[in-house]
Amino acid sequence: MSRPTRITSVTVKDIRFPTSLQKDGSDAMHKSPDYSAAYVTLTTDSDITAYGTTFANGKGTNIVCCAVEVFEKMLVGKQLSDIFDDFGNFWQSLVSEDQIRWLGPEKGVIHLATAAIVNALWDLWAKMENKPLWKLLVDMEPEKLVSTIDFRYMADTLTKEEALEILKKMQDGKKAREEELLAKGFPAYTTSCGWLGYSDEKIKKLATEAMAAGWTRFKMKVGADVKDDVRRAKIFRETLEEDMLLMVDANQKWEVQEAIDWMKQMADYKILWIEEPTNPDDVMGHAAIAEALVPLGIGVATGEMCQNRVMFKQFLKAKAMQYCQIDACRLGGVNEVLAVILLAAKYNVPVCPHAGGVALCELVQHLSMFDFVCVSGTMENRMIEFADHLHEHMLSPVVLKGGRYMAPKDPGYVVGIKEKALADFVYPEGAEWQRMFKEGLFQQE
Amino acid sequence: MSRPTRITSVTVKDIRFPTSLQKDGSDAMHKSPDYSAAYVTLTTDSDITAYGTTFANGKGTNIVCCAVEVFEKMLVGKQLSDIFDDFGNFWQSLVSEDQIRWLGPEKGVIHLATAAIVNALWDLWAKMENKPLWKLLVDMEPEKLVSTIDFRYMADTLTKEEALEILKKMQDGKKAREEELLAKGFPAYTTSCGWLGYSDEKIKKLATEAMAAGWTRFKMKVGADVKDDVRRAKIFRETLEEDMLLMVDANQKWEVQEAIDWMKQMADYKILWIEEPTNPDDVMGHAAIAEALVPLGIGVATGEMCQNRVMFKQFLKAKAMQYCQIDACRLGGVNEVLAVILLAAKYNVPVCPHAGGVALCELVQHLSMFDFVCVSGTMENRMIEFADHLHEHMLSPVVLKGGRYMAPKDPGYVVGIKEKALADFVYPEGAEWQRMFKEGLFQQE
Repeated sequence: MSRPTRITSVTVKDIRFPTSLQKDGSDAMHKSPDYSAAYVTLTTDSDITAYGTTFANGKGTNIVCCAVEVFEKMLVGKQLSDIFDDFGNFWQSLVSEDQIRWLGPEKGVIHLATAAIVNALWDLWAKMENKPLWKLLVDMEPEKLVSTIDFRYMADTLTKEEALEILKKMQDGKKAREEELLAKGFPAYTTSCGWLGYSDEKIKKLATEAMAAGWTRFKMKVGADVKDDVRRAKIFRETLEEDMLLMVDANQKWEVQEAIDWMKQMADYKILWIEEPTNPDDVMGHAAIAEALVPLGIGVATGEMCQNRVMFKQFLKAKAMQYCQIDACRLGGVNEVLAVILLAAKYNVPVCPHAGGVALCELVQHLSMFDFVCVSGTMENRMIEFADHLHEHMLSPVVLKGGRYMAPKDPGYVVGIKEKALADFVYPEGAEWQRMFKEGLFQQE
Repeated sequence: MSRPTRITSVTVKDIRFPTSLQKDGSDAMHKSPDYSAAYVTLTTDSDITAYGTTFANGKGTNIVCCAVEVFEKMLVGKQLSDIFDDFGNFWQSLVSEDQIRWLGPEKGVIHLATAAIVNALWDLWAKMENKPLWKLLVDMEPEKLVSTIDFRYMADTLTKEEALEILKKMQDGKKAREEELLAKGFPAYTTSCGWLGYSDEKIKKLATEAMAAGWTRFKMKVGADVKDDVRRAKIFRETLEEDMLLMVDANQKWEVQEAIDWMKQMADYKILWIEEPTNPDDVMGHAAIAEALVPLGIGVATGEMCQNRVMFKQFLKAKAMQYCQIDACRLGGVNEVLAVILLAAKYNVPVCPHAGGVALCELVQHLSMFDFVCVSGTMENRMIEFADHLHEHMLSPVVLKGGRYMAPKDPGYVVGIKEKALADFVYPEGAEWQRMFKEGLFQQE
């Protein structure tokens, strides 16, 4: 296939799945989410087409699509060499765009849109090299890898030189770790058994089935009612084997002291981490909770709504985060995720990516696999979230065996959504949406 | 005029002014801004129409307009009593909307859109009471005032009871302070003499003219080149009288150590504050800069891009902010600004609002006047930014006398943009934009 030299078009689609009908993904703050994606397609002057996606929720997706369209003009006609020869600089030009940065900078809608575009560029690069993203990153020279990172606002914490040093130190043993990864995959935990909307019976049944399938790490949602949470944790602990892991996720529900008091009531059930105990911007609040929970052996996990590398810098410096939960789309794409992975390594904080939603599992697996082979060098204390829905719509869905992600083999990063799913679920004109409007299952926005 | 009972329509316009042609508003990060507004109009079942606006920049405005449209359905048909009887709760319902909060929460584009809507609601309320907003707030019972605030995520810092206490303590002397305000106005400083794009001659000329008009407080932009900045500060100091104030603004240009080193080179020129020395999310970076600059008598000012009350909480707790620069549209409208004004009072940090842009001067004057009469009780160390452009397009522009904002008398908050300006500058169909496209001054997006 001919080698592309420039981008010829950028299009974005609003793809929404009616997940609210099953309460999949329900939590203390999102009662009825319709998992959605702003789905970007990049065409080139070759037969390579690349995809990028950002996870969003129902009508919010439309706003992200508006933002992607505003970025479009910065990409069409662009020479790929101008992007990939100095990707860090190109990334900076995207997030620094004079008229758009006022809306952030580097946070919220415009950063989600940046992620969709940047992820598409990495998908393109990986396809050009005919490698899955994790392998593209693993094979990349440390100098080239750090050239993709924008180190602005990091000089007091992680310089380019320090990042290089971390990568070079880990060159030893890379081959062996890659073989281990290919043989054994990367540890995962499942969130699919413990959604807030699920009944006790459904939780017990799903957890039992998951154990039979080899799962040993589980997460449940908490935060609506402490008695319910204690009862549900008890059900999990009675169902799970002694050494299996249980994490809980409050999705930002609590005040600082409330989080501490609530978790004290759950301490009997051997909770590894409390995720998002309070507002994602409350660095000092998380630090206070983390300090109070040390005696209970419960760590604080957060990051899925941590807006950029500068905020991760705050959380890591303040010891407010014992588990670093990067999100493949909340951050401004792979370039910024690499910065955060290196930052976490400097602070010896394990990276345990947030996943689920739409295609997040498919994306983050590449990032953790790179982290293992080239940065952390270990799988200890590390695991990727897994939520078992919507994978049937992916062109190349994740492969899990015995509760572990198997290394993806297909070239690229964002492997794309099936044509049928795009046709059925594009909002509002998709066939499935038209059917659901007719049947009165949903009202059109 | 009949009393409105519900909202009948919400519309939003993308209004852009070609300020980039004059380099007005140019700074280290925004080379050629076109000051713009997402301009919201609320109609009611009475003859009262209300306006809301958020300041944005050129093509970014379109994204904010998309977000406003998504909120529209939450307002049309809404009973006003359901909003104003428990405004804090209604505000919470806006920012917590299940499908939109994922895009933030409470930051960036969706929060700017929230501000436009919420500011329109306050404009409506003030018009219903036939008072300018500052007077509506000043006359409001403390209990009613705190009922408009969402105190979530504040329990560890400022409870509703503490807020009430601050307000009740300041009831004494309110009348006298209101009279002082009406007689003397509120102190202002001007940014209009020191834009980065201006020549030395233009700076000297403008500063001299401003002094003749009674100005005693000045701000200049810095951050492109330290030698230029030192030279321009010298020009200011040679032009100004001894006791006049000079502040500088780097618009997030520097790394932490870079900011400290740069300001040391400017220390001879008696700088009151360095504004936005580094990334607006870098709480600890600002704290480090503030600590290093204490011996030089230079404070750190920030806030115009501080995304919400939770981030202000970080900055105030960390002593990272000696001057609290609230923005009328960055925060989620008046309700959240009230929370931050009370928070700043608790930490004894003076509130010096960010202004300029489109209509920001017209908006923030109300907030500082309320702060003076009901919260801080003093004008000492407090001043409102003033930038002298685009006021000609306002239906009721700010009135400045001798470098002070005179208390506005017209009922309402967002007094609106003139019909002619709306027709000329609505993008892209406005008459002026069509002319400028034809003349090749701008290319249509």
